[in-house]
Amino acid sequence: MTKEKIAIVKIGGNIIEDEVVLKQFLQSFSKLEGKKILIHGGGKRATQFASKLGIASKMVDGRRITDKETLEVITMVYGGLVNKKIVAQLQANNTDAIGLTGADINSIQSEKRPVKEIDFGFVGDVTQVNHHGIDTLMTAGFTPVFCALTHDGNGQLLNTNADTIASQIAIGMSEIYATSLYYCFELKGVLNDIKDKESVIQKINSKTYQELLAAGTISAGMLPKLENCFDALQKGVQEVLIGNTTLLSKENNLHTKITL
Amino acid sequence: MTKEKIAIVKIGGNIIEDEVVLKQFLQSFSKLEGKKILIHGGGKRATQFASKLGIASKMVDGRRITDKETLEVITMVYGGLVNKKIVAQLQANNTDAIGLTGADINSIQSEKRPVKEIDFGFVGDVTQVNHHGIDTLMTAGFTPVFCALTHDGNGQLLNTNADTIASQIAIGMSEIYATSLYYCFELKGVLNDIKDKESVIQKINSKTYQELLAAGTISAGMLPKLENCFDALQKGVQEVLIGNTTLLSKENNLHTKITL
Repeated sequence: MTKEKIAIVKIGGNIIEDEVVLKQFLQSFSKLEGKKILIHGGGKRATQFASKLGIASKMVDGRRITDKETLEVITMVYGGLVNKKIVAQLQANNTDAIGLTGADINSIQSEKRPVKEIDFGFVGDVTQVNHHGIDTLMTAGFTPVFCALTHDGNGQLLNTNADTIASQIAIGMSEIYATSLYYCFELKGVLNDIKDKESVIQKINSKTYQELLAAGTISAGMLPKLENCFDALQKGVQEVLIGNTTLLSKENNLHTKITL
Repeated sequence: MTKEKIAIVKIGGNIIEDEVVLKQFLQSFSKLEGKKILIHGGGKRATQFASKLGIASKMVDGRRITDKETLEVITMVYGGLVNKKIVAQLQANNTDAIGLTGADINSIQSEKRPVKEIDFGFVGDVTQVNHHGIDTLMTAGFTPVFCALTHDGNGQLLNTNADTIASQIAIGMSEIYATSLYYCFELKGVLNDIKDKESVIQKINSKTYQELLAAGTISAGMLPKLENCFDALQKGVQEVLIGNTTLLSKENNLHTKITL
């Protein structure tokens, strides 16, 4: 039996920052036919609010530490401000959206990252995606909109990377659906030369990925995203594309397609 | 045919402030049998965060004005921080909660309050409760948790009184269910003497309400709550009780029962 199609779409922080770009993007998302799920981060808004509240961003080896106060800001900004604004805009587009964290309908459980050299604080690594629960919402006609928060099942919310949430949801949904995963961000795709925005690498597979890695072509920021892409493909996701906000429109002809 | 029962429970700001009290309350809520919906405000947390962010609370004639910045804070605190913490705690109690604003599944539409003598800003008066949508979630086994935000259907979130949201949801659900509405706050009920916390008026009906009003017994803060109670009863809600956090437990024997 052919599986029904589903689109899992992740939007990055720079799209959320710009109200005009976000609005246009959400219109493209609403026009996308069939079942779909949106995942967003919060990006700079959280840092801005933390700074206004006098909470310093704590970084260790270039990675953010989520202490109790930072988790509160993230819960407010990701789960409240950004998520609900997106839901309200999608409703205006006649997309019957429902905003979720991993705690809602126990959709994404995670465990607090164990303390090794670094204590990341309230950061969760995904352990389980409740794809049946999420499917129940979609079958009822609702379009889930996830922010980058999960929970441990014992009452604790945890900060989880939005790219990872997207790939984990895509993997979970691929049990039921033929799943496409779209990573939309400010660039047209993975670049050969970070200074040339047009130098999009149109196809990357496991072999060429290793070559790009060896050549130092992939920027540090792209590494975790690409690891998520390959993880998704290895675990049943059918299609993974990386591109800018035009990725969802039929006119788009420049993006990066990841294959195994 | 006898309608199935449902409990609509609203908790006030003072319960949310105190983590221990909130935890105990949520355990009582989780133990409540049958279908149920929780509604919460955000109270002082929003004022505290607004103050920390340097946003002054604007009051006209003792009533808060919701400007753009205040709405953002409310969206963060009510829709993010408070709502998602409650959802995560309920999940830990094995209650399969789902946090909602009025924008999610278009559950509560409102219209921005018209400007007359006072411009209240981004405040919404409820125009429609999507009781079928809410029922779809409950029939799927989910327990809705609403915060005090609605939307206008055109992409704008609006601040709406949580007591009113509770009565409007109760009215909406009474089309399908035999509905009980519980207002839980810091007092044991409506008091005869504001200085005597034990002076609970155990029964108030339309006639005695008018007498209490004439005698000036009802405090200004209780008036809108009681108006919501009578509105709910007049529009099909079967039972309305006001009390403290013990209201949901079988041991509770002191509260105010409102009847027509």
